[in-house]
Amino acid sequence: MKNTFGTSVAVTLFGESHGPEIGAVIDGLAPGLPVDEGFIAAQLTLRRPAGRIATARQETDAFRIVSGVFEGRTTGSALTVLIPNADTRSGDYTRGPARPGHADYAAFAKYHGYEDYRGGGHFSGRITAALVAAAAVVIPALQAKGILIGTHVARCAGTDDAPFSKNLAADLEKLNSLSFAVLDESKGALMREAIEIAASKGDSVGGILETAVLGLPAGIGEPWFDTVESVLSHTLFSVPAVKGVEFGSGFALADMTGSQANDPFRMRNGSAYTTTNHNGGVNGGITNGMPLIFRCAVKPTPSIALEQQTVNPLTGEETTLAVKGRHDPAIVHRARVVVDSVTALALCDLLALRFGTDWLASPEA
Amino acid sequence: MKNTFGTSVAVTLFGESHGPEIGAVIDGLAPGLPVDEGFIAAQLTLRRPAGRIATARQETDAFRIVSGVFEGRTTGSALTVLIPNADTRSGDYTRGPARPGHADYAAFAKYHGYEDYRGGGHFSGRITAALVAAAAVVIPALQAKGILIGTHVARCAGTDDAPFSKNLAADLEKLNSLSFAVLDESKGALMREAIEIAASKGDSVGGILETAVLGLPAGIGEPWFDTVESVLSHTLFSVPAVKGVEFGSGFALADMTGSQANDPFRMRNGSAYTTTNHNGGVNGGITNGMPLIFRCAVKPTPSIALEQQTVNPLTGEETTLAVKGRHDPAIVHRARVVVDSVTALALCDLLALRFGTDWLASPEA
Amino acid sequence: MKNTFGTSVAVTLFGESHGPEIGAVIDGLAPGLPVDEGFIAAQLTLRRPAGRIATARQETDAFRIVSGVFEGRTTGSALTVLIPNADTRSGDYTRGPARPGHADYAAFAKYHGYEDYRGGGHFSGRITAALVAAAAVVIPALQAKGILIGTHVARCAGTDDAPFSKNLAADLEKLNSLSFAVLDESKGALMREAIEIAASKGDSVGGILETAVLGLPAGIGEPWFDTVESVLSHTLFSVPAVKGVEFGSGFALADMTGSQANDPFRMRNGSAYTTTNHNGGVNGGITNGMPLIFRCAVKPTPSIALEQQTVNPLTGEETTLAVKGRHDPAIVHRARVVVDSVTALALCDLLALRFGTDWLASPEA
Amino acid sequence: MKNTFGTSVAVTLFGESHGPEIGAVIDGLAPGLPVDEGFIAAQLTLRRPAGRIATARQETDAFRIVSGVFEGRTTGSALTVLIPNADTRSGDYTRGPARPGHADYAAFAKYHGYEDYRGGGHFSGRITAALVAAAAVVIPALQAKGILIGTHVARCAGTDDAPFSKNLAADLEKLNSLSFAVLDESKGALMREAIEIAASKGDSVGGILETAVLGLPAGIGEPWFDTVESVLSHTLFSVPAVKGVEFGSGFALADMTGSQANDPFRMRNGSAYTTTNHNGGVNGGITNGMPLIFRCAVKPTPSIALEQQTVNPLTGEETTLAVKGRHDPAIVHRARVVVDSVTALALCDLLALRFGTDWLASPEA
Repeated sequence: MKNTFGTSVAVTLFGESHGPEIGAVIDGLAPGLPVDEGFIAAQLTLRRPAGRIATARQETDAFRIVSGVFEGRTTGSALTVLIPNADTRSGDYTRGPARPGHADYAAFAKYHGYEDYRGGGHFSGRITAALVAAAAVVIPALQAKGILIGTHVARCAGTDDAPFSKNLAADLEKLNSLSFAVLDESKGALMREAIEIAASKGDSVGGILETAVLGLPAGIGEPWFDTVESVLSHTLFSVPAVKGVEFGSGFALADMTGSQANDPFRMRNGSAYTTTNHNGGVNGGITNGMPLIFRCAVKPTPSIALEQQTVNPLTGEETTLAVKGRHDPAIVHRARVVVDSVTALALCDLLALRFGTDWLASPEA
Repeated sequence: MKNTFGTSVAVTLFGESHGPEIGAVIDGLAPGLPVDEGFIAAQLTLRRPAGRIATARQETDAFRIVSGVFEGRTTGSALTVLIPNADTRSGDYTRGPARPGHADYAAFAKYHGYEDYRGGGHFSGRITAALVAAAAVVIPALQAKGILIGTHVARCAGTDDAPFSKNLAADLEKLNSLSFAVLDESKGALMREAIEIAASKGDSVGGILETAVLGLPAGIGEPWFDTVESVLSHTLFSVPAVKGVEFGSGFALADMTGSQANDPFRMRNGSAYTTTNHNGGVNGGITNGMPLIFRCAVKPTPSIALEQQTVNPLTGEETTLAVKGRHDPAIVHRARVVVDSVTALALCDLLALRFGTDWLASPEA
Repeated sequence: MKNTFGTSVAVTLFGESHGPEIGAVIDGLAPGLPVDEGFIAAQLTLRRPAGRIATARQETDAFRIVSGVFEGRTTGSALTVLIPNADTRSGDYTRGPARPGHADYAAFAKYHGYEDYRGGGHFSGRITAALVAAAAVVIPALQAKGILIGTHVARCAGTDDAPFSKNLAADLEKLNSLSFAVLDESKGALMREAIEIAASKGDSVGGILETAVLGLPAGIGEPWFDTVESVLSHTLFSVPAVKGVEFGSGFALADMTGSQANDPFRMRNGSAYTTTNHNGGVNGGITNGMPLIFRCAVKPTPSIALEQQTVNPLTGEETTLAVKGRHDPAIVHRARVVVDSVTALALCDLLALRFGTDWLASPEA
Repeated sequence: MKNTFGTSVAVTLFGESHGPEIGAVIDGLAPGLPVDEGFIAAQLTLRRPAGRIATARQETDAFRIVSGVFEGRTTGSALTVLIPNADTRSGDYTRGPARPGHADYAAFAKYHGYEDYRGGGHFSGRITAALVAAAAVVIPALQAKGILIGTHVARCAGTDDAPFSKNLAADLEKLNSLSFAVLDESKGALMREAIEIAASKGDSVGGILETAVLGLPAGIGEPWFDTVESVLSHTLFSVPAVKGVEFGSGFALADMTGSQANDPFRMRNGSAYTTTNHNGGVNGGITNGMPLIFRCAVKPTPSIALEQQTVNPLTGEETTLAVKGRHDPAIVHRARVVVDSVTALALCDLLALRFGTDWLASPEA
């Protein structure tokens, strides 16, 4: 379905990096959800580049909601959020050589040169701002249901953050208050330093994001093809730069034995839990009530100032390219709120499919 | 959409491990594709357990096609393949404690105890036989279009297989002729030995599958939400035991710089290629004409004979369990043909969406 | 989505008139619904041709359910029903001239001659048997929720049946017990007589089916594109021979004024109702709590013994054709249970989307 | 899928009658289609109320395209068109009694009072402006492929227009140049007179729209569930006030015999045609190459100045209502361009599914 994702709660995304406006439509929302424009703005701020470790492009992200909200609450009709592109310097971009690691060449092959090539066009990470704004409508509603999402930069430029602690709720609350989301701020300082060094060399770095979701009921997900892992990975791999997704212990499970990897069940206060969580809260594609845990590999930003070999898709000539314009030496820390956002949207869809349209707005937690 | 996957070419899957029949419906196939029942049987044989490193359950997989084929070719209508479950010893299974690492507990939470619990029911790997049979209809058609898919056991029980060689076409051809698909058979011998040792201990092992797809045209995939990576990961995470998916260099990209990770473009005989393939043939979610490369983490089989702690979901009692019945000490080598199958089906869908219904049966390569 | 219909509860249909088996998969059913095989058989009997006003082809419709049911109840997994084609005399059919009014020519244009042409192949009304069987799983569940569906032959061969009475529940109950569903049996006798006369002339007749659904809650349907009218008409126009669908007063509304057509609201026992029902229980595409009323135009069976002008799609030659084989001089009375069936399936989908997966099996009415 | 319709080419619609903006997203368009903003404006003018037979609400429909177009052509990415609501006098609307014949009561039941009730909110015919603008992007592209769509007011307030002539192409060309689309302008004058009389009485009238589509290739449509009739009726019943849809001779087929209703095939210049077109260009749900013909029943505008009985959904009180504000005494003539628009969009989807993404922009007719 291309630019639309979801069955019961569906998101449609549109816009280009240097077009007049980007936006998203969320359809299928429960009627009556309070819409907190301050929270939307705050989430957009988390995504927005800031400081020396980010592009100098400055967007105010002055979003507006043009449908689906009435007197401060969702109506149940399609909600549309629009964000103008303010600071576009399209003069920086002309059709030229394909930037290595970017969509330029693949987009040319797909759209025969009709694509809006400026700044990556529809493939630009800029478009994720609309996703973040849309998701910011549902994240507080999920929280009101006891479902808490948070992500940290688990690794960046060779430095590992501290792992999640036993008090996952506190971890997530802390992460959601930070602009550079790490559990151990000393590790965060090292990461930022490494990003600045890469920037000074005209290069970039990547990293790993680790996400936890607390409070998901057991029994969410649809076999065969709409497992929680399938639906989440589908949306996560739509986030630019994500090249790997693993749940629970993920690739490390390949080296375990069954007796190590199986999470034993025990009872506590009348409900089942597992004493380990190598399966990341998912068995057979269905949530088991444990925290949902997954990790995304984020590749280094492909736009770098260093000279690279490439070709011009229009002329077929070999050439070299040093990407100009304003770019991020790392996006892993900014991608974190995008990952939270697509996670929230995908979970809303699965929950609405399971419990019906109105559930998200229903009073009981 | 639960048991249906795909937009233009869609697959619907049904059946339970110990029900009378399992099956799949493929809808949207080009009319006129030759259907090779011998190849279907051969693919089912690759999936079927065999020898000491597999469950003793023996299924003949006597499939039959009951719709969508006429005079040896696809009609363009929905094609249905049915496979009876012959060797079901349901007496081995009674509703009991949840098997750790299996869907039992999550399924109970989802279906309130109405699920067919025998042998994992609808969650059983058994159901993949129908997927394999369905995909075996399209794999030869893709090959006729020059699109070749192959997978090797890249790692199992701590042993790495050799990497893909420069002659990828030869590698894939070789792999597709092997029942235990490794590039270096000496490594395969080590893996099988480790599997046997695990089996002798009542335990199991996991591994990593690496897949390559040759011959995909550039420009396949749909931003934002139906990128090649999104669509493939969606189906791959539906395969039981897959807990991680990465494209190209995947998680290793997190530790690279942009100058290392970006694949430089060059021209050869009038068409562009990249001198490295860290992005696995995908830029911006769209194929770039290079081989599509991805890896799946396969967890160790959860059914093990060793005693494990668990609970009974019906009664809420804590208990222990040593799984009886016939089980595989590893499934990574059997899962390989399932991965090839869902890859073929997902690519058919994206190709049909791009080039139309009839393309797959059109004569030109 | 071709052979699949529905979002939350989806049906996939497959098979050909002279293939080995036809069938349907219903996916997304609530777990725990009792499955009454006697009722399924009874519904199939209503669809089956009988007596002098029907084809001589005799199918026992010995259906079997091969997935999704365990210990007499739905599991929540995909339910598959299969029906073998027993009495196929394919010798009666060879590729020949296109039968006027049938899909033969259009199918040839679509499938380039690869279609199974025998008896209409996948386009045959025979396939509706699988739909009827599938729907027979959910009709009792809808009834348990107070939702009652019934259809009468409102007009056939120039004779009108009596209109629905004030006691709609009694009307529907009566209709569901009849094989030739009319409210006034004397009118039914006239209709059957006219059908026999048409048959004796080698010709056929059409008619109009009128359906009522009682007990639907207000608020069902999704603007813009999945209104109750949109979703129902989508499925109704899939029923072979249906060429018109109207809701409430339908085409007659075109000649009314607003003051005549608007249904005034009044209160009774604390809930709203309308004193007329020209809108057929639907306002703005959403149910308003009044009975849902619609009518389907069913064209005369195209297979007739009279000689007709036609062409051979393979050779492009003009020719004449008198259709041989065993055919119905009317199908309107048989189509009635098919209309009930697709109505039940479409409503299940809209209700599940609104109230969640489990609603249909929940105890409260 | 609620506010999204289509598989390969999908439209998402949003907005409310008195919200800041309405809009539509078309996704899946071929790249390279020229976008003619003048034609979009002209189509919007056809939909816009004008003269004494229309509401006094005046919208300039100053649309803007904010994504998916670059240098005057479609990019292949999601195209978004936005239309501000300029002349909203929300003071005319307060939550009050449900307007009979409108969605007010059903919407209240569905959205629990959170809906934007002003002017019908998301249910308002106003929203169709966005559909018309979106479709105006593809209508010229269809024409370039030889596919011509046109609709006339076949009946209004008891007056029939002339039927389509033998020169259907000329008829359609003429209709597309008229603001009140009739083939016989003297009949149009009678209709307008009747509309004015109804208006003077504070009442409204309905009518029938008849549409023809020329140039559709044979073989379009997908059995079972996505027949041309299914897909078109799905979208047509989404148009406010449409209460009936019939193809070809439609309900009149119910009174024909098979020998009358079957359209005989003949050959002309090497291709097949039918000598009559009672089936409206569709056999078995698939186009047969003849003109596609269908009719929509449009009910009288429900907003009338005459006093009507109704209830207040909020309080449950019985009351009376004379609808104030600015309303149309008929919308059938304005709905005509909406019918053309949804027809164009639905056909684009079916054609793209059949022939691939790029077909609509390919040079050959």
